[in-house]
Amino acid sequence: MGDRWAIGLDLGGTDLKSGRVAHDGVLQGFSRRPSRTAESPDGPFQALEAAAMELRGSTQGEIVALGVGVPGPIDPRSGSQVGRTAHLPEWQDTPVRQWLEKRLGLPVAVDNDANLAALAEHRMGVARGTRISITITLGTGIGCGIIVDGRVLHGGWGGAGELGHIPLARGTTECACGVPGCVEPEASASGLMRQARERGLEDQSAEALFHRARLGDEEAQAMVEAMVDRLGATVATAVNILNPQLVVVGGGLAKAGDTLLDPLGRAIRRYALASHAKGLRIEPAALGERAGTVGAGILAWERVTRPVAASASRES
Amino acid sequence: MGDRWAIGLDLGGTDLKSGRVAHDGVLQGFSRRPSRTAESPDGPFQALEAAAMELRGSTQGEIVALGVGVPGPIDPRSGSQVGRTAHLPEWQDTPVRQWLEKRLGLPVAVDNDANLAALAEHRMGVARGTRISITITLGTGIGCGIIVDGRVLHGGWGGAGELGHIPLARGTTECACGVPGCVEPEASASGLMRQARERGLEDQSAEALFHRARLGDEEAQAMVEAMVDRLGATVATAVNILNPQLVVVGGGLAKAGDTLLDPLGRAIRRYALASHAKGLRIEPAALGERAGTVGAGILAWERVTRPVAASASRES
Repeated sequence: MGDRWAIGLDLGGTDLKSGRVAHDGVLQGFSRRPSRTAESPDGPFQALEAAAMELRGSTQGEIVALGVGVPGPIDPRSGSQVGRTAHLPEWQDTPVRQWLEKRLGLPVAVDNDANLAALAEHRMGVARGTRISITITLGTGIGCGIIVDGRVLHGGWGGAGELGHIPLARGTTECACGVPGCVEPEASASGLMRQARERGLEDQSAEALFHRARLGDEEAQAMVEAMVDRLGATVATAVNILNPQLVVVGGGLAKAGDTLLDPLGRAIRRYALASHAKGLRIEPAALGERAGTVGAGILAWERVTRPVAASASRES
Repeated sequence: MGDRWAIGLDLGGTDLKSGRVAHDGVLQGFSRRPSRTAESPDGPFQALEAAAMELRGSTQGEIVALGVGVPGPIDPRSGSQVGRTAHLPEWQDTPVRQWLEKRLGLPVAVDNDANLAALAEHRMGVARGTRISITITLGTGIGCGIIVDGRVLHGGWGGAGELGHIPLARGTTECACGVPGCVEPEASASGLMRQARERGLEDQSAEALFHRARLGDEEAQAMVEAMVDRLGATVATAVNILNPQLVVVGGGLAKAGDTLLDPLGRAIRRYALASHAKGLRIEPAALGERAGTVGAGILAWERVTRPVAASASRES
């Protein structure tokens, strides 16, 4: 048939999500697999290749390009990972785009996973029509994508949006990032779980702790409150610096729904300037766990329809 | 003569600086006067009008437009002040542009003073050729302008760059902004002077305290070190979120030169992510006290050469 598709791949710490994305952003064939085929540096590459080949085989029509979201900052000009990321420590300076283009013979565009979730929310989700929005993805850590005038703000070398690693911690737990007083250990789901383990609690997930807090458990309430306060201060810091119209809250932790969103919204407004909080909307992500895959497909389409730029997004 | 000029006005808490700016950014007739003719809400307006009229009278050639920098956030679409600012508390929601256009019969463009300093540094100063830079202006408080792809990043309602008001304080001194733990009282020159007064010190300016610290006074050293640490953490927070190629350090306090820049540079790099500090340049402003006036003139020119947009800068 004459249908044309882009492949979207969203590589996380645990799962690789994939699907085909039409030019209008519609997603088909969404599925997930482990993000590594083996415990080697090549493991994620092999998983990406396998997912792309499988989608190619099952797609009726033409595959025009491949888009990939990866954890950690990507330089949009080189298509290389810059800086370390906890989930892919071996990938620093890895030329992700070049490798995949060679293996697959397709135009490839690569970006940070939170940037792609933000792009998808802008094109297809809750951020449609906004001039400036930030999308935070609360998974193991804290991701953030910034969209200005419809394009991802990358910063000088792809590192914009590293919102988790700012010196807002109250305590002294060290983060692997090296920033003194980095807030991520106090403001993230993984930090919450580490605290739970240290206290001998048996909750299996941050969502479980949130649920227990909602039911009235005082220890869980205090832990969740402290975490949400730090996360709110973190997001409010970005709000005061960027003055967005909208904060989109996504990622696995967003499944906690109002249990998270209500107190987080209050915490953001507590630390935001009144002038910045006034018109600000805070909304759950519309695309859920599929946002990264949809964003990867949108990026791939923009790679082929705007071939001069190496990616769809601002190369700033 | 056939010369054409824009008038640039830079309204500060104490001084109003003014001059005429040619299309290529060259400044002539720079002067300063008190920023209020009277202690009334109209005082700054009268000073602006008087400075504009005087420049009009002394200029050979045509005045094409007027650009004005004011402290506090300005909505670029309405030309109105949004939010309170310590220096012009009576100006909240004041339609600065409309008032001046009516009085002067000229096209007028208005923006925040730090945004205009940043614009001037990008067009004529040390930020030329950068894709993303931030310019901090260290006067009484902490100003910040963000330039992305040659345009000011305004955010949703003109409030982007409110870098001073983020919750990074170590102590409990309250800031008038209302943000709990706002860092400005610990990271600004005015905060340093307030501490000096509380300790019964007789230094007349932050520069004097910096000088005394340089000469080895231990009390001054400890105070300056604590202030520079918080300022560094503040700027590094913007660096981690925006990943700029360049931080420009301007404003009156920048006159302290290396006495400020050396320890501030170290503090910024201490709190910045390694990947973000790696290629980052930190430079003193090239245009000094004239940056705001030059930026106002550039903005005025862009107002008349890009008439569809209400200002030269990104309306994001």
